[in-house]
Amino acid sequence: MTYEVNELVEIAAGRKKSGLVLKNASIVNVFTHEIYNGDIAIAGDKIAGVGHYEGLKEIDLKGRYAVPGLIDAHMHLESSMVMPFEFARAVLQRGTTTVIADPHEIANVAGLAGVRFLIGASRDILLDVFMTLPSCVPATPFDSPGASFTANDMEKLLDDPRVLGLGEVMDFQGVVSGRQDIFQKITLFSGKIIDGHAPGLTGLALNAYAAAGIRSDHECVAVDEMQEKLRLGFYILIREGSAARDLLALVKGVNSNNLRRCLFCTDDRQLEDIVKYGHIDNNVRMAVKNGIDAVSAVTMATLNTAECYGLRDRGAIAPGYLADIVILDSLEEFNINSVYKKGRLFIDKGSCEEKVIIPQNIGNTVSLTEITADMLKIKIQDPSVNVIEVVHGSIVTKKAIKNVSIIEGEFRCITGDDPVKLAVVERHKASGRIGLGLLDKFGLRGGAIASTISHDSHNLIVAGDNDEDMITAINEINACGGGITICSGGKVVKTLPLKIAGLISLKAYNEVYSIFGEMMEIVQRMGIPAGMDPFMTLSFMALTVIPEFRLTDRGLFDVTKQRFVSLE
Amino acid sequence: MTYEVNELVEIAAGRKKSGLVLKNASIVNVFTHEIYNGDIAIAGDKIAGVGHYEGLKEIDLKGRYAVPGLIDAHMHLESSMVMPFEFARAVLQRGTTTVIADPHEIANVAGLAGVRFLIGASRDILLDVFMTLPSCVPATPFDSPGASFTANDMEKLLDDPRVLGLGEVMDFQGVVSGRQDIFQKITLFSGKIIDGHAPGLTGLALNAYAAAGIRSDHECVAVDEMQEKLRLGFYILIREGSAARDLLALVKGVNSNNLRRCLFCTDDRQLEDIVKYGHIDNNVRMAVKNGIDAVSAVTMATLNTAECYGLRDRGAIAPGYLADIVILDSLEEFNINSVYKKGRLFIDKGSCEEKVIIPQNIGNTVSLTEITADMLKIKIQDPSVNVIEVVHGSIVTKKAIKNVSIIEGEFRCITGDDPVKLAVVERHKASGRIGLGLLDKFGLRGGAIASTISHDSHNLIVAGDNDEDMITAINEINACGGGITICSGGKVVKTLPLKIAGLISLKAYNEVYSIFGEMMEIVQRMGIPAGMDPFMTLSFMALTVIPEFRLTDRGLFDVTKQRFVSLE
Repeated sequence: MTYEVNELVEIAAGRKKSGLVLKNASIVNVFTHEIYNGDIAIAGDKIAGVGHYEGLKEIDLKGRYAVPGLIDAHMHLESSMVMPFEFARAVLQRGTTTVIADPHEIANVAGLAGVRFLIGASRDILLDVFMTLPSCVPATPFDSPGASFTANDMEKLLDDPRVLGLGEVMDFQGVVSGRQDIFQKITLFSGKIIDGHAPGLTGLALNAYAAAGIRSDHECVAVDEMQEKLRLGFYILIREGSAARDLLALVKGVNSNNLRRCLFCTDDRQLEDIVKYGHIDNNVRMAVKNGIDAVSAVTMATLNTAECYGLRDRGAIAPGYLADIVILDSLEEFNINSVYKKGRLFIDKGSCEEKVIIPQNIGNTVSLTEITADMLKIKIQDPSVNVIEVVHGSIVTKKAIKNVSIIEGEFRCITGDDPVKLAVVERHKASGRIGLGLLDKFGLRGGAIASTISHDSHNLIVAGDNDEDMITAINEINACGGGITICSGGKVVKTLPLKIAGLISLKAYNEVYSIFGEMMEIVQRMGIPAGMDPFMTLSFMALTVIPEFRLTDRGLFDVTKQRFVSLE
Repeated sequence: MTYEVNELVEIAAGRKKSGLVLKNASIVNVFTHEIYNGDIAIAGDKIAGVGHYEGLKEIDLKGRYAVPGLIDAHMHLESSMVMPFEFARAVLQRGTTTVIADPHEIANVAGLAGVRFLIGASRDILLDVFMTLPSCVPATPFDSPGASFTANDMEKLLDDPRVLGLGEVMDFQGVVSGRQDIFQKITLFSGKIIDGHAPGLTGLALNAYAAAGIRSDHECVAVDEMQEKLRLGFYILIREGSAARDLLALVKGVNSNNLRRCLFCTDDRQLEDIVKYGHIDNNVRMAVKNGIDAVSAVTMATLNTAECYGLRDRGAIAPGYLADIVILDSLEEFNINSVYKKGRLFIDKGSCEEKVIIPQNIGNTVSLTEITADMLKIKIQDPSVNVIEVVHGSIVTKKAIKNVSIIEGEFRCITGDDPVKLAVVERHKASGRIGLGLLDKFGLRGGAIASTISHDSHNLIVAGDNDEDMITAINEINACGGGITICSGGKVVKTLPLKIAGLISLKAYNEVYSIFGEMMEIVQRMGIPAGMDPFMTLSFMALTVIPEFRLTDRGLFDVTKQRFVSLE
């Protein structure tokens, strides 16, 4: 309920009783870096006043800490594999009340329609979801996405007040080298936020990237890199995702002088990590454990992000601000007691599955020709072949040459040391295009796993030690319209359907969490090393911007050399 | 010259030589609070890169400091008494490259037409002038301005990209008490900046003011007041004007935790002070002398203000930012060596007098019926009367009762101790309305002075020890269409015509400075106490919001009691 300004003023001035007063809070003030006791008077979705107030309803916080609702500066909703409403259920209880999302994944599958769907599905949910529009779809000329997302598409969404700017400009080389199509997009967002993504960029090239108007970066991994980017005017988004975890390294670079330019984000955080360890609250908690004082950490998660993205109505506990308030039992431990979103106590009301209306082109995105075992055969003469070597704990892979088993001129995974077979099947346009490769140190035995989450084009990726299970997995994915699956002995063992674009489930978040957890147990029994999420590993195998070897539907790709190579 | 983004990137990346490189600068970085050596490559109006660059033209700064161009967070162009182009000449050499102006004075004289004129006259000049629209015209129900400026008027200007928000909401009592006309204006600027003006407001009332969406204040005079306002989310604009000088008191309240919320402004600063002591550079210099470290002071004058007002293209020396750069010989002393505005060295090219086209209703705003000496007579029986007592060094006045000379039932200024006569003549609509009062401790003898600068309605105010000179002064003001004048012995001694709305001269700034200086010498010979600017003192005499006694064209006003009173 939104109150008119006059109602807010009546309550703030004490002439009218507030509907709800949070009494006796230890208020964390991010403007002055103070903590002091007071009451917070709420009027509809906003804070009316902070001081001494009486309300029609009063909740005694007994001195508990009140901090502003947390803001995720950059993330992809799709990474949670659940619908925005379900994502909201998962993160609101963790204190996140606003996210800035880049619908990059769904754009790769379904273009403008996909982006529109996600904007629509994240409107009018309790969590506030703002958007930056994906800037690099397709990601590279080597990609085979389901759709492209052009400057023309962007123009159609520019007037939406929830669209804040241009999403992470991942093609930093394109910017630095002066590619006109990127400048066209950047120019479209003149005066708005343009998010960056520039791992390792330095010197004059980094200057060029900044000169183009790009003002944030969430790819720093070291303090030196962070410092150079801060100097050139980049906001630094300190990321703690599922695969990319930069916080421990970067918090060492935060100090009272640059604090205001440092924010938190998750980028890609899996539901499992959110449920187990938290969302932005996890960033705050980790930062505090690693030497950032608690009020500063809260400021990074709130006011700083609001400032960076021009969200003037949130990020602090003050009159006229949204009543997004997180109540903590302990500030240092960041133990969340309760969460108020727009003035209302967050109470989980269950799943929204039945509410979703899915357009045909969003809910049915897997389009395959029949794939036969013959199409998966890798015919080689020489046992010494190029293999993609998994680097545990990293999304980087190694180029390696390895002796593998050959039977009748064909690769076969026989010995314990053989790599598994990897296939990327173009799944958007039924082209029948399949890229084949070998994946070493993945450890899967006695079956196959497959997924339609495969950055950035999200083609069907499947790995297995035998063709039969791989075909079963491909057929299962086709049958359920996208998802992740485990097959063994010619049968489907477990599937999580991801009906939306092959990326997002329609199930409740806790159900997805439960199914996914079960699948993790199964794959470990199939030889996947402990601690590895093989679906996440697969999801990066087609990403042609990360060194060294990748596999796409067009074949094995040498990232360093920026060209396709043969196995032999 | 504005470069396209691709040209900027070419230069930043080092593939194309910059037209101008400032070599070997000690760069003050407001993002990281550092100073380090480097080159600044300029491309058109922007900074392309900071690092090591070569240019077609190179200027060796020999290690001099480079700081971002200074920004005045809140000011009234009219206070300088010169046209915006002339004001720009005066302040650019002082390092101010951007101002946020509230055309409140001209709005009181000429309404929408006046505001439009000033917006137009400050467009396409070298200084960047942004506007907040005057929120309180007329200032009070007791005022007789030349025009009003309504929410409807504002709507016509909302789309101008230079209009940033709503100007200082001076009627804080109106906000707190819930006046709908003010809320209407505030609602119009939802999502934009709404500047405040709330001297001494505290507690629930201050909460109510904040809840209305007002986010800045430039009226703090003490650290406690500042601290309370910071807590509630107000940006604090630390003012060092000509009459109101708050900096010494407030810098004591600035610390590393609240620094980002503290800015500098001048509000009303006379040309004389700008020329003699500086503009925002004066704020910086004073802050540093009073314990603020130099980089922090520069940050307050640049990045902080840019952030507060959403000016994302300025406030720092970084790629993609405007090339507004101030070169200093000494950082601590803030000795300005040279100023670059939009990439060009500022060189004063002289006055623009001939360029101004003045609409009839802006250039001819004095409209009087004939004023006779009879109309100035103060008829009293009792020598003990209410007088307005000047408080030296303050704009506050005292209510006083004093025995004055009476001849033939009429007040006459005879003894050295007698007050002078004060008259406010309605001058916009030839109503013939005159308010008469007595001004004590003003010291003027042997003549009269008059002015059309008289806040907020800017009626004609005249003070003198004899009616003849007062009439001469009134006639002179009428003849020149507004201005300030000194008359003695029935003759005009010196006049500074202010043809624009009776507020602004068409002369060059240095000429105005010189004439005004001469007038100051003359009035001191006429008994005005040393150090008092009698025109400024008069300019506040009709301002019904400042205690204790004021005089308007409707008579003597008791500010505390909020009503008109008689002399006897």
